Amino acid sequence: MTARGRKKRDAIPQGVVGRLPVYFRYLTELAAQGVDKVSSAQLGEALDFTAAQIRSDLSYFGSFGQQGYGYNVGELLQQVRNILGLDKRHSLVLVGAGNIGKAIGSYSWFRAEGFIIEAIFDIDPHLIGNIHGGCAIRHVDELRQYLRNHPTDIGIIATPKEAAQAICDLLVEGGVRGIWNFSPAQLDVPDEVILENIHLTDSLLRLSFRLSEREQRAEGE
Amino acid sequence: MTARGRKKRDAIPQGVVGRLPVYFRYLTELAAQGVDKVSSAQLGEALDFTAAQIRSDLSYFGSFGQQGYGYNVGELLQQVRNILGLDKRHSLVLVGAGNIGKAIGSYSWFRAEGFIIEAIFDIDPHLIGNIHGGCAIRHVDELRQYLRNHPTDIGIIATPKEAAQAICDLLVEGGVRGIWNFSPAQLDVPDEVILENIHLTDSLLRLSFRLSEREQRAEGE
Repeated sequence: MTARGRKKRDAIPQGVVGRLPVYFRYLTELAAQGVDKVSSAQLGEALDFTAAQIRSDLSYFGSFGQQGYGYNVGELLQQVRNILGLDKRHSLVLVGAGNIGKAIGSYSWFRAEGFIIEAIFDIDPHLIGNIHGGCAIRHVDELRQYLRNHPTDIGIIATPKEAAQAICDLLVEGGVRGIWNFSPAQLDVPDEVILENIHLTDSLLRLSFRLSEREQRAEGE
Repeated sequence: MTARGRKKRDAIPQGVVGRLPVYFRYLTELAAQGVDKVSSAQLGEALDFTAAQIRSDLSYFGSFGQQGYGYNVGELLQQVRNILGLDKRHSLVLVGAGNIGKAIGSYSWFRAEGFIIEAIFDIDPHLIGNIHGGCAIRHVDELRQYLRNHPTDIGIIATPKEAAQAICDLLVEGGVRGIWNFSPAQLDVPDEVILENIHLTDSLLRLSFRLSEREQRAEGE
């Protein structure tokens, strides 16, 4: 990437970052439908953003529509993919082969986008040796040694809450740069490691709060 | 709830709402440890908020610490639970009994907090009649009739993307007030229905973006 590209990249505000997956999903769909070009007005209508916001967002990607033509879908998608890091292959390990772990391990989208789960670990002796998504499940005691021999980008934690921090520490020590945490634990990671959480309970609590709020407004009317 | 309580409640800003699950989780832990009281300074340190922010947040819950004593953990937790709607029982149906659906269905926390999955639906004839989490799995063709006979608060969608909107429409027509969506689909719901998404792909894309951003900064240094 050029120095200029890098500078542009560093300047992407959080709001735009949050909308990147939305652009990515929609542009992927358009490309699959064979659509070649799209205007900011069309994008805005489909995604429920204003056309001005679309134009401002896309300018961060170094992409400028042409008057009377709009944006080239393929080029725009490629830029969004690069910004999202999808131009690279990522190696992953998954710790925890329960239902959530199995669901993650069998999600074909991840593999198609270059997120390759290369090893799966669990503590349950009944699971060790089972094949899931093409990986033999290994005992978690082998995790440290595995990471020494196989540099890994991302560790997925799908263990019970109680085990999560210890696994996280092992992953960090083993050199992963990112943790994708599905356990309900609030994990401590060093500054140089990126932590992304899927907290199911928090999500359900937000839903419950909004239902309860709505109910009380209705009662108050 | 009193009129005054209701007024306070309506005024909770989004930022505070986002922190509610964090308070809930931490206060639950303190209560489980038998801790009786906690100061805003202690809360701030544990949760990485400033003491001033804690005091401001808690004032929305109508809770005021006492000088030299702090907050009563049990009372505070009760208030947070009420605000989150955890003082009520919620009835749920789950559509999609694949790995993600099974993981959700077997999460005991939900049941303990009053979110009761009362029926599970799938389209796969091999799954129909199987018992999961105490529920027999029914055919999705029975969903409409089921909802007519069993008023339900929340519908969980754990189907493939292609089926999600049709299931969502059935759930909305059947009178659910909230949709908890685990499919990668961008769902349309009427204004009166609350939609909460768990988009796994978006979460992984955020992680990938931040890894890629970090890498480029390191290269630029």
